[in-house]
Amino acid sequence: MNIDGTKIDYDDVLSEVARGLKQNAIRKLTPLLARPEIISLAPGAPSPDVFPKEELADMASSLIRDRWFSALQYGPTRGNSALVHALVDYLQPRGFPSVSPANILVTTGSQQGLDLATRVLLDRGDVVLVELPSYIGGIVALHNCGARLVGVRQDDDGIVIEDLREKIDHHRRLGQRVKCIYTIPNFQNPSGVTLASDRRHQIIEVAREHNLIVIEDDPYRDIYFSEDAASLTPLAAIDPTRVIYINSFSKILAPGLRVAWLVAPEPIAAKIEIAKEGADLSSSQLDMAIVNEAMRSGLVDRHVPGLRRFYREKRDVMIRALEQNAPAGSAWTTPAGGFFVLYRAPEALDAAALLPVAIEAGVAYVPGDAFFVDGSGNNTMRLAFCRETPEKIIEGIKRLGQVLRRDLEYSR
Amino acid sequence: MNIDGTKIDYDDVLSEVARGLKQNAIRKLTPLLARPEIISLAPGAPSPDVFPKEELADMASSLIRDRWFSALQYGPTRGNSALVHALVDYLQPRGFPSVSPANILVTTGSQQGLDLATRVLLDRGDVVLVELPSYIGGIVALHNCGARLVGVRQDDDGIVIEDLREKIDHHRRLGQRVKCIYTIPNFQNPSGVTLASDRRHQIIEVAREHNLIVIEDDPYRDIYFSEDAASLTPLAAIDPTRVIYINSFSKILAPGLRVAWLVAPEPIAAKIEIAKEGADLSSSQLDMAIVNEAMRSGLVDRHVPGLRRFYREKRDVMIRALEQNAPAGSAWTTPAGGFFVLYRAPEALDAAALLPVAIEAGVAYVPGDAFFVDGSGNNTMRLAFCRETPEKIIEGIKRLGQVLRRDLEYSR
Repeated sequence: MNIDGTKIDYDDVLSEVARGLKQNAIRKLTPLLARPEIISLAPGAPSPDVFPKEELADMASSLIRDRWFSALQYGPTRGNSALVHALVDYLQPRGFPSVSPANILVTTGSQQGLDLATRVLLDRGDVVLVELPSYIGGIVALHNCGARLVGVRQDDDGIVIEDLREKIDHHRRLGQRVKCIYTIPNFQNPSGVTLASDRRHQIIEVAREHNLIVIEDDPYRDIYFSEDAASLTPLAAIDPTRVIYINSFSKILAPGLRVAWLVAPEPIAAKIEIAKEGADLSSSQLDMAIVNEAMRSGLVDRHVPGLRRFYREKRDVMIRALEQNAPAGSAWTTPAGGFFVLYRAPEALDAAALLPVAIEAGVAYVPGDAFFVDGSGNNTMRLAFCRETPEKIIEGIKRLGQVLRRDLEYSR
Repeated sequence: MNIDGTKIDYDDVLSEVARGLKQNAIRKLTPLLARPEIISLAPGAPSPDVFPKEELADMASSLIRDRWFSALQYGPTRGNSALVHALVDYLQPRGFPSVSPANILVTTGSQQGLDLATRVLLDRGDVVLVELPSYIGGIVALHNCGARLVGVRQDDDGIVIEDLREKIDHHRRLGQRVKCIYTIPNFQNPSGVTLASDRRHQIIEVAREHNLIVIEDDPYRDIYFSEDAASLTPLAAIDPTRVIYINSFSKILAPGLRVAWLVAPEPIAAKIEIAKEGADLSSSQLDMAIVNEAMRSGLVDRHVPGLRRFYREKRDVMIRALEQNAPAGSAWTTPAGGFFVLYRAPEALDAAALLPVAIEAGVAYVPGDAFFVDGSGNNTMRLAFCRETPEKIIEGIKRLGQVLRRDLEYSR
């Protein structure tokens, strides 16, 4: 009720974008998971046990005291200049020999990279091909700019190229503008699948044929569990003119710092820079200064190998626990890196409907359907091994096994 | 040139939004001003001399060490919960008796507040009334979401209500949808003008009559130079159901921390929250934790009175220097707070064309035309007294006076 007695109908004043906004299904869950007795295999948050707290605390303090001009003042929209140059040095030997600062932008988390990339690429109704399943934050960013999301099948080697071609042809025949492919090639969120090397080349071929841009979202890149997984070629290295490559420090340092980065063809990077200027002027200067110092001082290089061991152990624990506790006929992925296993129940099971039961039993997961833009995936769950301890992962999977078995028996 | 020999026309793959993106004219200037011998009255950046560096350094360090769960981990999109509650406590006695956490959102600088507010309110072609002149970052955010910006005259008391009514009627008659009024009521950027109390009530009346939302951008609120200016009522306090109120810690703590906030009617705040989730998940958790600690510990309260004295002295110095150095027939505002004086040359003078000459003479300003959405203001300059020392302000205005006199003589 308004002060003068008239009532405002806010729907009248909201934009079309606002009326269509989609909420991130994972973040909607967060309040449910606050009870400490619940073992949460839901959030994809890194474990705070491996945040390099002492080092980051010392860096923050000395940067604010002595280098306040980069830590506390306004700074360039592209990001802390030293950090941008450090990223060039990091990228050149890793398949990006001709990358320059003009290709790089630091963003407020990968989420902002996704948001800005979609804003400069997509008009309402443009078609974007996304993996089945795909990352919810990516789906939300694509959805919010009015794109038409079309799911492409994945198998154990990632995107199925025949299905990709079919979907593109189908939507072109409908007269729709097919614009982008969105992929998470390594240790995918939520499937844990890794895109095979030959598929990477085939996707670039398809992109060239149809004049598409590929958005390559690669936040787990450095959290690999085998040497094979260490040497995977980014799609952006195959054809830097067609790919916006997005990566982040959230998983290898700390996500509260909100420092991620992207590499894009120069004309696209220039547009993203202007879009970011309007979106937030720049990301946190303090966070960027800390991350630059973490790169420069060698902290990142020293820290990451330990993370690989830490998360690999937890993956192994989860896989073993699934082998021991999952009902017969279950299936799951064994990721070569990252944070996630996608679990598939043996028969028709509504993972979303089962979640309150599981929470009652003291374990939580993310129901898989939110990751599938075609409405499938009801019988899948994303199980994250990143945050809980090995002991809790074992106990959590035990509880989940009981819940699943009870439900399957009941529905027989 | 593509790797396979084909050339990509990036214009083909960019969105309509990207093709129309507008760059912030002030930030475009930044690279020009890097030479240390130039006295820059251009940037609206606070003086680093008054950053509370020692206190912030200690807070950052102990928060990362001991309260990493709020400083380093993912957190709620609305912002650090303690900070949101601290803002409620801050607002309640200041004209917002019924504000609650559901009305508040922490953003990555005021710029993100502007961007998100415009995204949830404005469709392509919607009319927004903006002051002549107005803040460039606001203009950019409004422009980037496709709004039609219509300038409204200001006098020494701010927006001229008759002109506001006329413009609304005119655009309604053209069949356009008039949606918002964007105002900076206190010590406006760039004019330095303060909106008179009766005008505030009249603007709310107009908004009610035409079902408009007011975006009230108030970053200089606490940097006032008189008791009168201290007690100005926010438009949001007159009618909280119609106003999105935006404020920031950039000017009272440090802008590199990128912590700003907004107050909005609950249904609009809910939409902005979802939009922010897609835009960056959350702002920097470390920055928010630091700002919360600065509020909680009393640092903000202790720090701000000194800022008022510090900037008032610099305003006084600039006004005296203008009195002594400006060519006859010049006009300027005497702001009751904030960072800016708007200077108007005595006759036709192209401030943009004169800028390279001024830079050559060792002084810089922002040409006023970029602030006027109707293309006027060519003979105005924004002179910021925030960043340079009093000595440099005096010398800068002296240099500017010489440049102006020379140009005026030459053009006679």
